[in-house]
Amino acid sequence: MEVAVKDSRVLGSMLKPETVAILGASSNKNKLGYLQVKALLDGGFQGDIYPINPNADMIEGLRCYHSLADVPKQVDLAVFCVSAANAEECLMDCAKNKVKSIILFASGYSEVGEKGFEKQERLRKIAEDNGIRLLGPNCVGLVNTVNGLVCTFSPGLTELPLKNKREVGFITQSGAFGVLTYIAAAQAGLTFNYFVSVGNEAETGFSDLVEYMIDDPETSVISGYLEGEKNPDRLRRLATKALDVNKPIVIMKSGRSSAGSRAAVSHTGSLAGSDKIYDGFFKQTNIVRAEDYDDIISFSKLFQAKKLPKGRNTVIITSSGGRGINEADRCEAYGLHIHKLQTKTRQKIEQRIPSFASAANPIDLTAAAAVTNPELFIEPLKALVEDKDVDIIMFSEFPMNWDADSPYLQEFIEICSSTDKLVFITTFPLEGMAVPAGTDELEKNGIPVITGDLNPVRALAKLVDYSERYRQTKQEKGNEFPGKKTETNVSKLMRPGATLSESEASEVLESYGIPITKRQLAITETEAVKCAEEIGYPVVLKIDSPDIPHKSDANAIQLNVTGEQAVRTAYREVLENAANYKPDAKVNGVSVQQMLPQGVEVICGVSNDPTFGPVIMFGLGGVFVEVFEDIAFRVAPITKQDAIDMITETKGYQVLRGIRGKPAADIDAIADVLMRVSALASDYKHDINELDINPLIVYEQGIVAADAMLTVKETENLSSVAGGK
Amino acid sequence: MEVAVKDSRVLGSMLKPETVAILGASSNKNKLGYLQVKALLDGGFQGDIYPINPNADMIEGLRCYHSLADVPKQVDLAVFCVSAANAEECLMDCAKNKVKSIILFASGYSEVGEKGFEKQERLRKIAEDNGIRLLGPNCVGLVNTVNGLVCTFSPGLTELPLKNKREVGFITQSGAFGVLTYIAAAQAGLTFNYFVSVGNEAETGFSDLVEYMIDDPETSVISGYLEGEKNPDRLRRLATKALDVNKPIVIMKSGRSSAGSRAAVSHTGSLAGSDKIYDGFFKQTNIVRAEDYDDIISFSKLFQAKKLPKGRNTVIITSSGGRGINEADRCEAYGLHIHKLQTKTRQKIEQRIPSFASAANPIDLTAAAAVTNPELFIEPLKALVEDKDVDIIMFSEFPMNWDADSPYLQEFIEICSSTDKLVFITTFPLEGMAVPAGTDELEKNGIPVITGDLNPVRALAKLVDYSERYRQTKQEKGNEFPGKKTETNVSKLMRPGATLSESEASEVLESYGIPITKRQLAITETEAVKCAEEIGYPVVLKIDSPDIPHKSDANAIQLNVTGEQAVRTAYREVLENAANYKPDAKVNGVSVQQMLPQGVEVICGVSNDPTFGPVIMFGLGGVFVEVFEDIAFRVAPITKQDAIDMITETKGYQVLRGIRGKPAADIDAIADVLMRVSALASDYKHDINELDINPLIVYEQGIVAADAMLTVKETENLSSVAGGK
Repeated sequence: MEVAVKDSRVLGSMLKPETVAILGASSNKNKLGYLQVKALLDGGFQGDIYPINPNADMIEGLRCYHSLADVPKQVDLAVFCVSAANAEECLMDCAKNKVKSIILFASGYSEVGEKGFEKQERLRKIAEDNGIRLLGPNCVGLVNTVNGLVCTFSPGLTELPLKNKREVGFITQSGAFGVLTYIAAAQAGLTFNYFVSVGNEAETGFSDLVEYMIDDPETSVISGYLEGEKNPDRLRRLATKALDVNKPIVIMKSGRSSAGSRAAVSHTGSLAGSDKIYDGFFKQTNIVRAEDYDDIISFSKLFQAKKLPKGRNTVIITSSGGRGINEADRCEAYGLHIHKLQTKTRQKIEQRIPSFASAANPIDLTAAAAVTNPELFIEPLKALVEDKDVDIIMFSEFPMNWDADSPYLQEFIEICSSTDKLVFITTFPLEGMAVPAGTDELEKNGIPVITGDLNPVRALAKLVDYSERYRQTKQEKGNEFPGKKTETNVSKLMRPGATLSESEASEVLESYGIPITKRQLAITETEAVKCAEEIGYPVVLKIDSPDIPHKSDANAIQLNVTGEQAVRTAYREVLENAANYKPDAKVNGVSVQQMLPQGVEVICGVSNDPTFGPVIMFGLGGVFVEVFEDIAFRVAPITKQDAIDMITETKGYQVLRGIRGKPAADIDAIADVLMRVSALASDYKHDINELDINPLIVYEQGIVAADAMLTVKETENLSSVAGGK
Repeated sequence: MEVAVKDSRVLGSMLKPETVAILGASSNKNKLGYLQVKALLDGGFQGDIYPINPNADMIEGLRCYHSLADVPKQVDLAVFCVSAANAEECLMDCAKNKVKSIILFASGYSEVGEKGFEKQERLRKIAEDNGIRLLGPNCVGLVNTVNGLVCTFSPGLTELPLKNKREVGFITQSGAFGVLTYIAAAQAGLTFNYFVSVGNEAETGFSDLVEYMIDDPETSVISGYLEGEKNPDRLRRLATKALDVNKPIVIMKSGRSSAGSRAAVSHTGSLAGSDKIYDGFFKQTNIVRAEDYDDIISFSKLFQAKKLPKGRNTVIITSSGGRGINEADRCEAYGLHIHKLQTKTRQKIEQRIPSFASAANPIDLTAAAAVTNPELFIEPLKALVEDKDVDIIMFSEFPMNWDADSPYLQEFIEICSSTDKLVFITTFPLEGMAVPAGTDELEKNGIPVITGDLNPVRALAKLVDYSERYRQTKQEKGNEFPGKKTETNVSKLMRPGATLSESEASEVLESYGIPITKRQLAITETEAVKCAEEIGYPVVLKIDSPDIPHKSDANAIQLNVTGEQAVRTAYREVLENAANYKPDAKVNGVSVQQMLPQGVEVICGVSNDPTFGPVIMFGLGGVFVEVFEDIAFRVAPITKQDAIDMITETKGYQVLRGIRGKPAADIDAIADVLMRVSALASDYKHDINELDINPLIVYEQGIVAADAMLTVKETENLSSVAGGK
């Protein structure tokens, strides 16, 4: 079932080739084969360029070869400027000539249906059999702005000057949207080091590029536009690796609206909200989710500074009081703290700025002072870097005319470099006025400059979240998932297509160490009394039948039963009502259970997502799930931190924390159950269709699963504990 | 208490003067007095300009007058380019010479403290006594882009070319932020017809300008930046007037974060969240709230089209599949419907576009087709305007090279003009590529063009909300607030500083026709039994004492009491527990009340906001208020539609609508209570400090206030029914 994974280093032949052949090179200025040669020359490509055309000797001053076989060196990359009809033949020629990688722009493959897919599969097979890395088909190509490798037919990519290059790679599943993002980023002063359009991903896919960039020393931030990841397991492993080396991954995932979080109501069976699952997946892998192209740009800019704020305490320095208020509004809306400065720091600042300026946060230098004495912008910074309570310093407005040679700018950069606090600059997005003269110098020195239209505060909030999670992960090392259990009794219960009875489902939970209600199965009245006395009054009596999953509907449940006589009566009534409700139901007996004291009712479940496999869900019962759809999702397996995050991200956490003087519920116990459910879901990922523990009752200390429902997939039992994964 | 209101027509002398005098005009190119003359000349001001300077004869080719008295015509507007020290003297000179209005840039007034305030008050008095309209002080001035009246010292305003003028006025309480917004709007292709910085609002305030623009035939949309409105009553009346003539008002209100909606928890006493009140105020007045400068621009652009969509059914036409998905995501996130096209419409479109393009919504013409056959953009439009289910047609991408002379553009405009559906265009915000050549022509013809960075979809959602409310208001005509009651018994209870006992508070509610629990006060055991039998079992017994507002804490309440003996026991226990809890409490007796059947518990309250006066709040009880802070606010008095809006905007509405097969609660009954509470709050706005009906129990039919708490202001009883308003 695993998708084949190739060695990412071979991709170097595609992204950093030394020799590039252009198949179908042409002197005709309207042809792709000409434009591609021109693009490499204009880009200043640093390696060898070999135009290939059987009928030409020179193209744009370059010697043209009649065939691949004539090329004097081994070809790292061949760019196909040929029609789809000739692609297969050309690919075989590449194989014969030991070409390492190719780019195929042509369309007419899997995107047009079954026949195209077959054509594409043939190409994939040839490439894989010959160890050739293949980008495309149906892509707009790739650009490496560092070595001038411009392999694309898109004028948007070829016509931009290659300045403001940053260590940010960009991978896109949509060509057109990718090109627009590339241009918008370049206009905002961020030129990606790599732009890669993966097209139909016949052989080289999104994750392959992510892996390459993790290993690439010239990339600090990996960004991308994703419509769907076929192999989330692999992306997850890569994300772990990226986090380990602190290379943030920023992804815009489209298709939010198709996700029916509406459906995720009241019952784990309907947890179809795959976009909510992506959200959970991104959170647990610390992949930073961007909402749009502007997020990709601003997040990348900010993350590229390589400073991880230690907290949320933010100080704003501005020369416009109004703008300061607005930025403060935005910060608080995004969960940052507008930090009240200590008296000492405040006094230091007051000594350095004019009396009519304000040393409170936001620090307002006033427009007058800022215009006449721009050096004032440095003064509060000096005091702030000395204050250990300050985590983030945000300049809203900045002297426009300080260029790279300005001694003020150099002093500013020096102070910023001396501190581990994040310092960044936001400006009002006015054409010709938004970008301070020193922007490139600032950004090269880890001080991002982001115009207000790119939502810098949202980017900041994301960076702070990432930093928190990054530190947690470092602390969490060795906090692995609970080991798998080899419970043969559980495997035995996983009958294809079965709906487990409550007692069977409880047995499964108990095998994984999840506390369940004390219970015994009685098949006679006298036995029921004996059970009740052993468990202790009051008790609950319920029908135990796989054919009656909704016992309340059948009136086959009696609560709060105390005393022998009452147990006898309840026993008879439960059986009678069940028989009336469904005369042909298979009945195992009557389950006698402990009557649980009141606690907070939560829900925990598992659903099986077609893309992600087993997904764990958590939420509070009642209106929280039914009305507010207040549910957290994570893909199994989960860590303890994931479990804690799931609990705390729900609004219902406010109740668990204790409202109106009530004591807090046992959060650790919930996290423990979530991890055990995750272990169960992982062990039986090919078996469990759906698990619903509802309610799971949490106390000040301890937790009990009061009821559970488990259904097994219809298909053959594909895994057992032994055969798992 | 009412702030004096001036005749808005006189403001015409300030905004559309025919004669402008510049006091302190100068030949010194560094002086404000020179820059101001230059700005009027550069702006192409269409009236007469009179520089005033005792020592100059000519300035920039204009005859200079030695004093105001020398000017041959009556001066409509005098611009003060003099220091604050001379302002008072100049103003008196203006009065003597019958100048109609003045602009005062100088600062050093109320913004610097008490002394400055006194200076400002003297200016205000002189202006008012002489009927002079005064803008400022401490403002950056005003610009009328239509007649070239550029009265400002801000280079940001004087240096922009005056093109793309639209019928959108802009009023700002922050000079700097206002200038930045003006520039950003101009760069986005929207030049305001008026820019007015109101500064300290000594005489002419924000609302005065709103009023002027409502009456102004050259203004279609009124926009503004507001930090705080001193007289919300007046703004409300103006908003009603604006709505009546369908002139949308778009306001960015800053200071969201200072609003403690956190505080608005569990108890109406802490409803300090004035930002949430602003939110409610804007909703009930149909003022469109902008979050930032970009909203001001995009909302104004879209509203200026003067088309009110009849519904939320939106169709997207794009040439980029990826972009189409993203716009659809955004539409759904903002509550718009991506409309599934009828087969008939779909077929019509299919006949007109290439086979590889998609006629499903989003309609994807594909990049290839769009580049080679841009006329394709018109084809789906023809079919869509004929489909009555389509309300909104959104072009994401548009042919870039269609200029005003293009027959395609003219055909496109013709089709758009023939339909009442809203058609607009969004583009990807790339420098030099974002704005189609025909933008000005399109916008003049009511087809807005908005770049993606300005959040056009958010603007669309706001327009749809506005349109719905607009139509509701038209239907609602004559649906006035319930008339005032003259309940002398209520006035009598409003003792300054009092906390009313439950029975007193209930009496107040009953006077306003709000259903309350059947109840009788008993002062002996026997009487309690008699009351209980009259009311009907089961009953509730509660202590009635103004000194014990929290009866549960005192254990002085007994629920579900049935039978004579139980009533006797309960009566004694309630009194005993109350005596133990607070031995010196004044006790009126024991209240015997109907034991209400279960229903949905909601909360309704009144608090007295220092700015807005009585504010009505509504929310569901329990976690809805305590955890989710799920509370709706409106300023009293409210209409029936306001009441319905309050109910439906809470998340708790899902519960009231009936969840899990439960019947819906009586929404009309809740709305009725909210309106009655509003009448009470308005009648006694100077008396009621706080009212808290909690719980108010709603049934499938009917509603009952089960408990109420009312406190009266400490101050003298300022109003009675007779003296109100």
